[in-house]
Amino acid sequence: MPDDLARWGADAPILGERVRDYLARHVGVASPWPPADTERWVLAASRLSDSDLDAMRSVVGADHVSVERDDRLRAMGGAAFIDYARRRADEVDDAPDAVVSPATHDEVVALLAVAREHGLAVIPVGGGTSVVGGLRTHSPHIALDLRRLGRLIHLDEISGVATVGPAITGPVLEALLAARGFTLGHLPQSWERATIGGYVATRSAGQASTGYGRSDDMVEAVVVATPEGTMQLGRAPSTAAGPDLRGLIIGSEGAFGVITRVSLRVRRLPTARIYDAIMLPGFAAGVEAFRDAVQSRSSADVMRLSDEAETATTLLMSGPHGIAARAFDRYLRARGVADPSLAILGWEGTDRDLVGARRSATLRALRRHGAVSLGHGPGQSWRRHRFDGPHLRDSLMDAGYLVETLETATHWSTYLDLHTTVTDALRQALREGQGVGPYVMSHLSHSYDTGASLYTTVIAVADRRDPVGQWQRAKTAASRAIMDSGATITHHHAIGRDHAPWLVDEVGPLGIDVLRAVKSTLDPDVTLNPGVLGLD
Amino acid sequence: MPDDLARWGADAPILGERVRDYLARHVGVASPWPPADTERWVLAASRLSDSDLDAMRSVVGADHVSVERDDRLRAMGGAAFIDYARRRADEVDDAPDAVVSPATHDEVVALLAVAREHGLAVIPVGGGTSVVGGLRTHSPHIALDLRRLGRLIHLDEISGVATVGPAITGPVLEALLAARGFTLGHLPQSWERATIGGYVATRSAGQASTGYGRSDDMVEAVVVATPEGTMQLGRAPSTAAGPDLRGLIIGSEGAFGVITRVSLRVRRLPTARIYDAIMLPGFAAGVEAFRDAVQSRSSADVMRLSDEAETATTLLMSGPHGIAARAFDRYLRARGVADPSLAILGWEGTDRDLVGARRSATLRALRRHGAVSLGHGPGQSWRRHRFDGPHLRDSLMDAGYLVETLETATHWSTYLDLHTTVTDALRQALREGQGVGPYVMSHLSHSYDTGASLYTTVIAVADRRDPVGQWQRAKTAASRAIMDSGATITHHHAIGRDHAPWLVDEVGPLGIDVLRAVKSTLDPDVTLNPGVLGLD
Repeated sequence: MPDDLARWGADAPILGERVRDYLARHVGVASPWPPADTERWVLAASRLSDSDLDAMRSVVGADHVSVERDDRLRAMGGAAFIDYARRRADEVDDAPDAVVSPATHDEVVALLAVAREHGLAVIPVGGGTSVVGGLRTHSPHIALDLRRLGRLIHLDEISGVATVGPAITGPVLEALLAARGFTLGHLPQSWERATIGGYVATRSAGQASTGYGRSDDMVEAVVVATPEGTMQLGRAPSTAAGPDLRGLIIGSEGAFGVITRVSLRVRRLPTARIYDAIMLPGFAAGVEAFRDAVQSRSSADVMRLSDEAETATTLLMSGPHGIAARAFDRYLRARGVADPSLAILGWEGTDRDLVGARRSATLRALRRHGAVSLGHGPGQSWRRHRFDGPHLRDSLMDAGYLVETLETATHWSTYLDLHTTVTDALRQALREGQGVGPYVMSHLSHSYDTGASLYTTVIAVADRRDPVGQWQRAKTAASRAIMDSGATITHHHAIGRDHAPWLVDEVGPLGIDVLRAVKSTLDPDVTLNPGVLGLD
Repeated sequence: MPDDLARWGADAPILGERVRDYLARHVGVASPWPPADTERWVLAASRLSDSDLDAMRSVVGADHVSVERDDRLRAMGGAAFIDYARRRADEVDDAPDAVVSPATHDEVVALLAVAREHGLAVIPVGGGTSVVGGLRTHSPHIALDLRRLGRLIHLDEISGVATVGPAITGPVLEALLAARGFTLGHLPQSWERATIGGYVATRSAGQASTGYGRSDDMVEAVVVATPEGTMQLGRAPSTAAGPDLRGLIIGSEGAFGVITRVSLRVRRLPTARIYDAIMLPGFAAGVEAFRDAVQSRSSADVMRLSDEAETATTLLMSGPHGIAARAFDRYLRARGVADPSLAILGWEGTDRDLVGARRSATLRALRRHGAVSLGHGPGQSWRRHRFDGPHLRDSLMDAGYLVETLETATHWSTYLDLHTTVTDALRQALREGQGVGPYVMSHLSHSYDTGASLYTTVIAVADRRDPVGQWQRAKTAASRAIMDSGATITHHHAIGRDHAPWLVDEVGPLGIDVLRAVKSTLDPDVTLNPGVLGLD
């Protein structure tokens, strides 16, 4: 069995003594948490009948319908802390009852018809990286494994539009595009495993979203298979032809249809790329600096600002080969930066002069707020390590820690209050556990004219009797704080099942009625991903 | 009666002899078309009962419910050629049966309840500038005149979010914002009269959309009154909380609800502004140049490119005080520009150095395609005259010409083919009329990474026996050509009633089902703008 069912990957870093000391001092002493032993997992027999399976085999062929233990486990999604905690406790009752792998859009349409006729639930599975329970159900269901729909189908080099199957992953797509001189530039933390279909279905945003846009900005057209037939949306780069139905599919999380083809706006591969690290005199000053840069239209393509707590951890983690923390501290103090906030900035493009001019403009804005430059080194280092987060989580869980993230977004005028509120709610909720208390740290990583995202990481000593409950209570407290602040329940992780109770606060009861009406129009018998978005 | 019921405004320019000669030579000789005499218009009695009127009076007070002739005529919308042609023939059967003016969101909700109970149709009216029959119905209906909901309610200067009533017009909003150091930057041709609610309801795009975005990009939040109650959408600058329901309201054209409040992203008022005119060696080269500029991320905020026919007309119309056409022609020929295409480019911002650097980058890209600079003069002149188009149409109609515009958008790879196809379709369809033939000219005015808009103006000798039919036949031919090319039926004019037959080609039969499901959820008894979007 592949190791990445039980954890993010095989590359969990070893935590050095300095990091272990820091955790012990700031979070508490934890005891090692044995990794899951996938061989020990006991999977209940498939709840599908021979007739169900035969009907699906008649569509895709017998080779592409599996009820084998390992296939079913491999199609089990979920990369949240509670998913991994459940697996360490050998709980795998969310595995699908069968895995079906269609090769074409028409096969997906036919499979949905069969599933509807047989009263079966179908969950489309891409990379399986949902951190909000998008795939987590204990009811009988079929995993619609889309991996055979993972090609770069067409690249319109004139228009810069790449048409792809939904199961293509970021690294594969970027390699194929780079060979033709293009890039998508969508770099979520889950980039190594997540698929394009998943990006679109969850309205995800990547680390370079300030410059490259969110997934919603990248989708030119979609083809969707629904139990009621096919939808094709998106004829032009932009339109005023009625309400935006493309926007109904983006973020629909498999509840309205299966995305079988996506046309993406791609960009010319940058020939100029500058990454810088900057220190700002505290998070409040940094937020003001970012706001000033964006509102003076001087934004970078990557703009990330760590709060004081995350900055301290970053300096620690960068280790002996990175920034020598103490000397560095003295350097900053001499420049008036006492509790620094680290900013990573990146500019990319094909016109070297313009990239340089844009960089100068961003730095002009940031210097108005006390920015001190650290040079290219730390910025480049961040670029190299940008996908390390989930691997580090494996190590921290092995060491006995609860580690999870949550994220939101709000307007600039309420941003710092939100930061305080979320931090306090998490500290409060996790205070009563073992250890010194939780370590809560945040960053801003997606800037808009009117506001920004807030991404928060929590580390606490895991309550090994009930780590799932421990996190769920903390998450509920943070979610309530977020909604009370008027912010959004999720900026880029989607709704799934974990955020479903809050969707009514986002769109109101009438908004939920509208979503239900769309659901019953496209999926009248609730064949697709029942329970996701809380619509059923 | 105000003159602008029968025509766009009071400022129709006088056509000089040179222009008249040009029209006679290139379009044909026409005979003067008498302007409408609004005093002569005969309006049928209101079809509403006393009980209907009393019920509405009980909500807004007697002063704000009118069945007076002049009020009803004033609330009659529509600014298309066929609207003005109908009025010149004294056809005013699309006037509402009553005009009701609520002052609050709650009054709108209450009015919709009353209308539903009494089985009355309600059409929200802002500036009345629809050019696609968005307000044109001959059935009994109430005009919901929103002018009492036209305030700047709140300006969050930190976030750059202006919250406004729907009836505020562009000039008023820009003046209020400018006083506080902000701008919206949405400048449609209808700017003088259109309202914010209309911008949003029709997904409109302004002349600076390349830099400032479309109306859909500007809407942070909306409050909507529907017959089923209130919807409030938009909590944050961006979200991944399920499908985008805000995008269902934007472009809903009064079919789903009445927009009673809009929160708009506003920008810092530019302190640096440069407008340039450039000549390119033909439209094909110009399109390539624009594509190169946009795809190298070197776009200007305003990017407009006229084809050869529109360029010739612009040079002619700029008159004796403008560019001396013949000398200019020689200047361009010496630089290898034989059949020039005129580009207007504008860069705006608060960081002068960055504005300059962006300008240099745009010009670098355009020069790769043979651009020749004409300096700031013609660019500034375009800025001064940017809202003249509709006034000029009044003059041309007075002189006996059919004059109308249509617009679409497509990807770069099919852009020039679309231009040819649309031009040919219009020439063909209007060939058999009187005169030499139609004059067809186009421009590109909204650039995206993957494609651009195409805006076409047609001038023909009006067939005075049936000018409406004459245009409808030509419009049908052009629409068919657009849809056959895979382009969108409308880039920024919306669907209304005139484009309704084509919506199914945009979104497919299942897409129409989804729109109908949303309609019946929010407006089950079809109280709101029946017939618009073709949903009823």
